[in-house]
Amino acid sequence: MNIILLNRDEIQDNNVSVGGRRAEHLVRVLRVQPGDSVRLGVVGGPLGTGTVVDLQRKYPFFARLEVTLDRLPPPSPQLELIVALPRPIMLKRIFSQATALGVRRFHIIHSRRVEKSFWESGLLEKKEYIPHLLHGLEQAAVDTRLPEVVFHRRFKPFIKEFRPQQCAQGVLQLLAHPDGGRPLAALSSGWQGEVVAAVGPEGGWVDYEVEQFIAAGFVCCSVGRRILKVDTAVVALLGAVDALRQVGQQR
Amino acid sequence: MNIILLNRDEIQDNNVSVGGRRAEHLVRVLRVQPGDSVRLGVVGGPLGTGTVVDLQRKYPFFARLEVTLDRLPPPSPQLELIVALPRPIMLKRIFSQATALGVRRFHIIHSRRVEKSFWESGLLEKKEYIPHLLHGLEQAAVDTRLPEVVFHRRFKPFIKEFRPQQCAQGVLQLLAHPDGGRPLAALSSGWQGEVVAAVGPEGGWVDYEVEQFIAAGFVCCSVGRRILKVDTAVVALLGAVDALRQVGQQR
Repeated sequence: MNIILLNRDEIQDNNVSVGGRRAEHLVRVLRVQPGDSVRLGVVGGPLGTGTVVDLQRKYPFFARLEVTLDRLPPPSPQLELIVALPRPIMLKRIFSQATALGVRRFHIIHSRRVEKSFWESGLLEKKEYIPHLLHGLEQAAVDTRLPEVVFHRRFKPFIKEFRPQQCAQGVLQLLAHPDGGRPLAALSSGWQGEVVAAVGPEGGWVDYEVEQFIAAGFVCCSVGRRILKVDTAVVALLGAVDALRQVGQQR
Repeated sequence: MNIILLNRDEIQDNNVSVGGRRAEHLVRVLRVQPGDSVRLGVVGGPLGTGTVVDLQRKYPFFARLEVTLDRLPPPSPQLELIVALPRPIMLKRIFSQATALGVRRFHIIHSRRVEKSFWESGLLEKKEYIPHLLHGLEQAAVDTRLPEVVFHRRFKPFIKEFRPQQCAQGVLQLLAHPDGGRPLAALSSGWQGEVVAAVGPEGGWVDYEVEQFIAAGFVCCSVGRRILKVDTAVVALLGAVDALRQVGQQR
């Protein structure tokens, strides 16, 4: 937790009282004293600092902070991530790691090689997955905006609707696929626009899905011959996109 | 497990009998039949195929394969990774994920912000960490060579010895650090040589360490303002290095 995130309705007259996980972090990890300042932000809102005015160092931990909000969050990440629904423990890691790296919207989709039972997971409920997105924001300490999460239980309607939405806009649509070519090079040549990146399930996309993605304007990109777990592939791809974009901007 | 890895001394007269985890994988995940072929490799040696000649489908699982070894593994990954010792659960993930992505040698080092107690972990013993490296090789299914792992319990001797070894060779030495500049751009301009990448502990390198790395020829590179967990940072950095190298080769 590198930033304390608050809900707007927790702040009253520029003061906030926190308990639980956040207070424990202030007491046991940051070891704050009254008068100390900590980085904080309002979920979906501005960033600022909190000055500790009162503190309970023993369980149940408790802290009261005076809140100053003076900065807007940075522009939204220019990245949407499409992921074939993985097993829940993997999806949790992807939610928090990819949010830390910066994702504006997750599309969690069905694909032939997705196990049907994964769609029964409780993690698909908002109250279950939001904490993992929050962990990502608390880790990165840069943005306050939760990524949007959209679940698509059927592949065909997803890809049919996705196409016309994106085509208008000048979006680089990348499909992670072993047979991929060189579209990543576009990023290091100075691509400044949106990126949509799609990562398949364990075992990969089936041919029909690859065809549909290509028909929808996606270009295959390979990150080497190695077979990667879905969470490794997502983080490596986001790292690649980010680095290539940075290099492109510097040219 | 996308490849069955064998130890050389398990093979006798081009036959191997496997039980345990590998046999269970053949029976329950791959659902092989006698006559089927599977990808296999010898740890540190050649790659090939195994043809199933006998099979026990119930616990205790068992399989006998006829082994054909006909390919050398690819050249070693041109990447060494320096990581400040993280907590054991994080180190396990780094070992398997980074091995899957391709690392020739891990240097696990001490740094000011490494908790001393982490050096007491059983994971630092070969018999404990090798399985995590094997998992990485089994996942990627490309290489058979285990990365070398070197532990350095003191920072100063490590950095003093590291310098003269590397300087002679033409190695791009990257230090992941928030204040970094543009050295990653070198990779997309066609860098073909070795890369050494160093990732700090939670809370980052202290100033003294950064100075020592720079004196040893490292250049700071940033992967953005976001604060990342060590495992996320490692995978994102390896993804970036790999993608930039590929783009460089295509130019």
